[in-house]
Amino acid sequence: MILRIDKIAIDLPQPKNPSPNSAAAIQELMGGRFGEMSTLMNYTFQSFNFRGRDKLRPFYDLISNIAAEEYSHIELVAYAINLLLTGTTKRGTDPTTTPLASSVDARNAYHFIASGQSALPIDSMGKPWDGSYVFSSGNLKLDLLHNFFLECGARANKIRVYEMVDDPTARAMVGYLLVRGGVHIVAYARALEKLTGADLKKLFPIPDISNKKFPEARKLEEQGLHQIMFRLAQMTIDKWLKFGMDRIQKTVLN
Amino acid sequence: MILRIDKIAIDLPQPKNPSPNSAAAIQELMGGRFGEMSTLMNYTFQSFNFRGRDKLRPFYDLISNIAAEEYSHIELVAYAINLLLTGTTKRGTDPTTTPLASSVDARNAYHFIASGQSALPIDSMGKPWDGSYVFSSGNLKLDLLHNFFLECGARANKIRVYEMVDDPTARAMVGYLLVRGGVHIVAYARALEKLTGADLKKLFPIPDISNKKFPEARKLEEQGLHQIMFRLAQMTIDKWLKFGMDRIQKTVLN
Amino acid sequence: MILRIDKIAIDLPQPKNPSPNSAAAIQELMGGRFGEMSTLMNYTFQSFNFRGRDKLRPFYDLISNIAAEEYSHIELVAYAINLLLTGTTKRGTDPTTTPLASSVDARNAYHFIASGQSALPIDSMGKPWDGSYVFSSGNLKLDLLHNFFLECGARANKIRVYEMVDDPTARAMVGYLLVRGGVHIVAYARALEKLTGADLKKLFPIPDISNKKFPEARKLEEQGLHQIMFRLAQMTIDKWLKFGMDRIQKTVLN
Amino acid sequence: MILRIDKIAIDLPQPKNPSPNSAAAIQELMGGRFGEMSTLMNYTFQSFNFRGRDKLRPFYDLISNIAAEEYSHIELVAYAINLLLTGTTKRGTDPTTTPLASSVDARNAYHFIASGQSALPIDSMGKPWDGSYVFSSGNLKLDLLHNFFLECGARANKIRVYEMVDDPTARAMVGYLLVRGGVHIVAYARALEKLTGADLKKLFPIPDISNKKFPEARKLEEQGLHQIMFRLAQMTIDKWLKFGMDRIQKTVLN
Amino acid sequence: MILRIDKIAIDLPQPKNPSPNSAAAIQELMGGRFGEMSTLMNYTFQSFNFRGRDKLRPFYDLISNIAAEEYSHIELVAYAINLLLTGTTKRGTDPTTTPLASSVDARNAYHFIASGQSALPIDSMGKPWDGSYVFSSGNLKLDLLHNFFLECGARANKIRVYEMVDDPTARAMVGYLLVRGGVHIVAYARALEKLTGADLKKLFPIPDISNKKFPEARKLEEQGLHQIMFRLAQMTIDKWLKFGMDRIQKTVLN
Amino acid sequence: MILRIDKIAIDLPQPKNPSPNSAAAIQELMGGRFGEMSTLMNYTFQSFNFRGRDKLRPFYDLISNIAAEEYSHIELVAYAINLLLTGTTKRGTDPTTTPLASSVDARNAYHFIASGQSALPIDSMGKPWDGSYVFSSGNLKLDLLHNFFLECGARANKIRVYEMVDDPTARAMVGYLLVRGGVHIVAYARALEKLTGADLKKLFPIPDISNKKFPEARKLEEQGLHQIMFRLAQMTIDKWLKFGMDRIQKTVLN
Repeated sequence: MILRIDKIAIDLPQPKNPSPNSAAAIQELMGGRFGEMSTLMNYTFQSFNFRGRDKLRPFYDLISNIAAEEYSHIELVAYAINLLLTGTTKRGTDPTTTPLASSVDARNAYHFIASGQSALPIDSMGKPWDGSYVFSSGNLKLDLLHNFFLECGARANKIRVYEMVDDPTARAMVGYLLVRGGVHIVAYARALEKLTGADLKKLFPIPDISNKKFPEARKLEEQGLHQIMFRLAQMTIDKWLKFGMDRIQKTVLN
Repeated sequence: MILRIDKIAIDLPQPKNPSPNSAAAIQELMGGRFGEMSTLMNYTFQSFNFRGRDKLRPFYDLISNIAAEEYSHIELVAYAINLLLTGTTKRGTDPTTTPLASSVDARNAYHFIASGQSALPIDSMGKPWDGSYVFSSGNLKLDLLHNFFLECGARANKIRVYEMVDDPTARAMVGYLLVRGGVHIVAYARALEKLTGADLKKLFPIPDISNKKFPEARKLEEQGLHQIMFRLAQMTIDKWLKFGMDRIQKTVLN
Repeated sequence: MILRIDKIAIDLPQPKNPSPNSAAAIQELMGGRFGEMSTLMNYTFQSFNFRGRDKLRPFYDLISNIAAEEYSHIELVAYAINLLLTGTTKRGTDPTTTPLASSVDARNAYHFIASGQSALPIDSMGKPWDGSYVFSSGNLKLDLLHNFFLECGARANKIRVYEMVDDPTARAMVGYLLVRGGVHIVAYARALEKLTGADLKKLFPIPDISNKKFPEARKLEEQGLHQIMFRLAQMTIDKWLKFGMDRIQKTVLN
Repeated sequence: MILRIDKIAIDLPQPKNPSPNSAAAIQELMGGRFGEMSTLMNYTFQSFNFRGRDKLRPFYDLISNIAAEEYSHIELVAYAINLLLTGTTKRGTDPTTTPLASSVDARNAYHFIASGQSALPIDSMGKPWDGSYVFSSGNLKLDLLHNFFLECGARANKIRVYEMVDDPTARAMVGYLLVRGGVHIVAYARALEKLTGADLKKLFPIPDISNKKFPEARKLEEQGLHQIMFRLAQMTIDKWLKFGMDRIQKTVLN
Repeated sequence: MILRIDKIAIDLPQPKNPSPNSAAAIQELMGGRFGEMSTLMNYTFQSFNFRGRDKLRPFYDLISNIAAEEYSHIELVAYAINLLLTGTTKRGTDPTTTPLASSVDARNAYHFIASGQSALPIDSMGKPWDGSYVFSSGNLKLDLLHNFFLECGARANKIRVYEMVDDPTARAMVGYLLVRGGVHIVAYARALEKLTGADLKKLFPIPDISNKKFPEARKLEEQGLHQIMFRLAQMTIDKWLKFGMDRIQKTVLN
Repeated sequence: MILRIDKIAIDLPQPKNPSPNSAAAIQELMGGRFGEMSTLMNYTFQSFNFRGRDKLRPFYDLISNIAAEEYSHIELVAYAINLLLTGTTKRGTDPTTTPLASSVDARNAYHFIASGQSALPIDSMGKPWDGSYVFSSGNLKLDLLHNFFLECGARANKIRVYEMVDDPTARAMVGYLLVRGGVHIVAYARALEKLTGADLKKLFPIPDISNKKFPEARKLEEQGLHQIMFRLAQMTIDKWLKFGMDRIQKTVLN
């Protein structure tokens, strides 16, 4: 079960200009093979399917907590897409004025015909996200390795979208995802280390560019966001109530 | 954002016998066009994309709350699938004993090769769920009509899976979904009525068979589960803490 | 069986200018989830699969007649696409003059590489129409509800394409589809009313804009086209011959 | 435009026994890459997209007429599937009796969950038919070559389904399709010969087995069905009325 | 087994200008239904699945040799795509300069987000190549007819891409493919003739334009490239060593 | 370019019994996301797209060599599938004897209708392999990490297929793939180590079972097959001729 809080992960600035083609590119971070739908659903199914929860509790908790956090990521990407699409056309009551004329040349026609200028679970070419992107093998080591790779692939995509789009809305969103995705990379690497002893730290960062190169990410890391592991899952109801929310939400990864 | 509670919607009885082909059929309720992945993601994206939240607050709340509840449905379907797959094979340390031999004739090979005998976001024929099943048109009346139809289509599928599988695990799960899906059908019909004045009650039930015919659903309705609208969404953090959880979770639909 | 008449539903004006991107957008009305391929094939399969034709004859006739009419809609959409693509390039005998140069930046490359600048069963992003869009549940009430929703969704798409493209060819085509689709919305609503007593009229129109706002549709409604139910199906051969064609084609919906 | 006649191409005998797995196999002839949906839609789009109708009239007529006939083939395949599915389960009013129990092991779950035990536009593995199977290149010679190959591929599939299923319903249907498909193979070969002079007769038959080996086909050929080209298309309304239907339908090829 | 030689089929000139949209169009020749992935994989699977190799040796050799050659075609198409993408953006170490800005409006976003500006097994609209494009029927005559048609369809696509793109890199690549594809058309036609006696020569060329109209192809034909059948397959290891490579590679077709 | 040698990687024993459902399961190792089509095409495209070959030569060589070897793996898997399908039906000249009757209940209908009882580029559920399985990011570290994960995922699938099928043909094939895949896992791990210093050895083996538990693999390892890196690529033609083949093929990994 989940409880849903009407709060977006971070505030995003308004776009300088609406930009349907930027929104189209950002869809890769939503519904691409390495988008947030993929991280959300991979970890969600892995947590549903986790066998041996008692013995392997910390691993179950890790996957469940990250799964829960990913929900806020699809929410944030949707928010950015919606901001970038708002105002791209001038809708009114008279269709003969061709209010959507500008969209004929836009890269993603679904944004204008199917979705009313808002986000969809599709990628940057309009391909729908699909369940074959979910890997849940029943083998913990293999799942963790998958997750580690998935987060690294996702990081590459985030960086490239950042390099494509200079809009502050998009960059604030990507900056946040870089920081949080970075935490997940570390978390999965440590989990693999605990399970096997292998030290993956020398692989970092993949790709070979520091989060500090991205001002929007750097700012958040200066606030310590890269050192926090959100605990959004696995608490009993009693514990939720006993704990203050601030404490529940920010438990430093150790 | 979501908080995830480590609690399944209802307890399910253990299966009488493991049954991979029953599990394969139940996948339709997970990843089919009318499965719980579809209800979850339709309402989730509609809530992300909702414009005019102030003016149309009750509709936004409705969609968000049902979206949040649907998460517990994919969790429950996954749980039922996992129970039915547990014990279908005798895995050990010696592969030469062909521990998975029985699965060669099973209908869903992914359950044995890809997922380690657990749930996947696919349908009863192994087709992955995909994002083209999400309808989020930006037109509230149309979205509500879609949701009403989607829930009716989902109800038909649930009934047919019930008629295929007599295992108590599966039936308890389907019974629960029939009751909660029934609440959602009523909720979307009422929302359409509030928006337009149209009275859809005479359409009920679709298909033309009462929930009371299903003992597992009837039992839950006798407990009043069909009269409760879960409020799992839209609360501020402050409100979550102020309210007791019981009160948060059970607010009668009016 | 069908007999095919070499006659397009309405004459379309020549385009002001060829426009491959307008043609690309219009493909949504052909091969999108809510395009005319979908209405054609949904009703066709529902009519093939209809059980209880004697007892439920008027419903069978309704679905079969609309199915037959939809064929003329895919024909009309194809015609509009073909007109808009004609003349977009200057083909000749010398390939070294790069006669298709302009198409490199066009949104739909299939129109130039695969189809020789003509219509295909694909949507506005090039995704092929597919059989998963067909809903034929064997439950009449549910099929009718589906059809009612499908026509409303199709209406939204038509309106948006109208708002994107101001070419007179496209608008004449969309205007015609709006009128005929409007008849089908009413027809399915009435069928549901006859079956259940539910009155869906207060839902109209979906989306909330009258056909009268579209000059090309208004003109046709002034001619009464919105009050005619075509009877293109279900006649025996004897009856076809006994009836004059005019009488066959225009039988007022009652 | 089409007129639809409520008449199936041939009567089919009742199945000896219902057989869901036979119905599943026959779906290949409906929605497979070489199924009747493919022949119908290939020729339909080629006829819509045909440029130069005046100069190349006989070729346009050929394609249009075969397109029209193919509609009766999807109808016939649907009919056969429906007959084979009828009675596979005992549906009643009490779901607790597990009326669909036998379908859990059936190969095609969609027949029981999605379609109410009737035909769908899918293939023998449940893969939906899709628009990428349509070839309409705008080059007449290439389209005719495609059609010739498509019919040969379809013939191979029909033969194999015949060899899989010994039910008289299925075999009567396949026998009819073999005869009519044979006419189309000859027709496209002749059309290529007229256009280019190439004589393809020595290629016949593909695969290398005569229709006479199939008793159900042989019987129809003894009635001359393999020498008739149906003229179901291209008539003006005036001509339809002037001609008697019998004459319209049976005009011997060339 | 294969041995891979680090040598591209022909040298390609550098592009006049990088052109991501030209690269996007060329992807059709890689991953489209008629692209080189399709010719490679069709013949590869047909050779793997060939039954009766002793009796039908020349046909097996033919298919295997062409299969082996097609590998050099996917290599060449990839090379052309990579050349056209090189330099389309100015990547550096500072992401805040938006080094990929120009790609936001490019037709194929995968080239920039997924592939690091290089080739992928997708078509001109980004649709992934898929295994349903492979035809391997087990019937030699039918497979050969398929291959003949496939090569003709591929030729049409090559010509159209040539007509879209005037870059010398692209045209040199297409010119080479036209010559070699022409050899394969002749080879499959002759194979059909040997098997059946049917003479398909009068069908040539499809489409109706000579390779001589393409200067890059004409130049290669003047060197005799259209009269050579590469023998890249079917040799035993002993023979490879005994033969000089030149002789192995160029054995004139019969 | 490739040269193709008419030699299968290892001899396979004849099956004890034909087994279409075992063949269906083995298709996962051919056309599944982790099948040999995926390893072949991932490394092939990565090698085509490799930038900086001079500076990073050993990495380019590694990927190219493994790419070349993977071709022999799709060949071997096809061979095993074909052996298991041979004799599953008794085809003859009289179709009325229903020679394919037994296939009606087989899991993979394509094997009987489409492919003439031979291998296809599809997975264990009939889903076609597709190009979205190819990862070629242009980032060497990320591609190597992907390849390492891909090989581990492939190893899990091979083990599970081994545990499903006890036929000696299948097991000999899987045993060989386990050994060679094991070499590739080590090779990619070492490549990552050379590039970054990270030592991944403690992760081995994934899944947590030694190749020695599989008699068919153990036998090959006792012959040293797990210590050999095949050099099937990157040689110039001159070198091929100068070297003896034995030396070319077996160069110990160091």
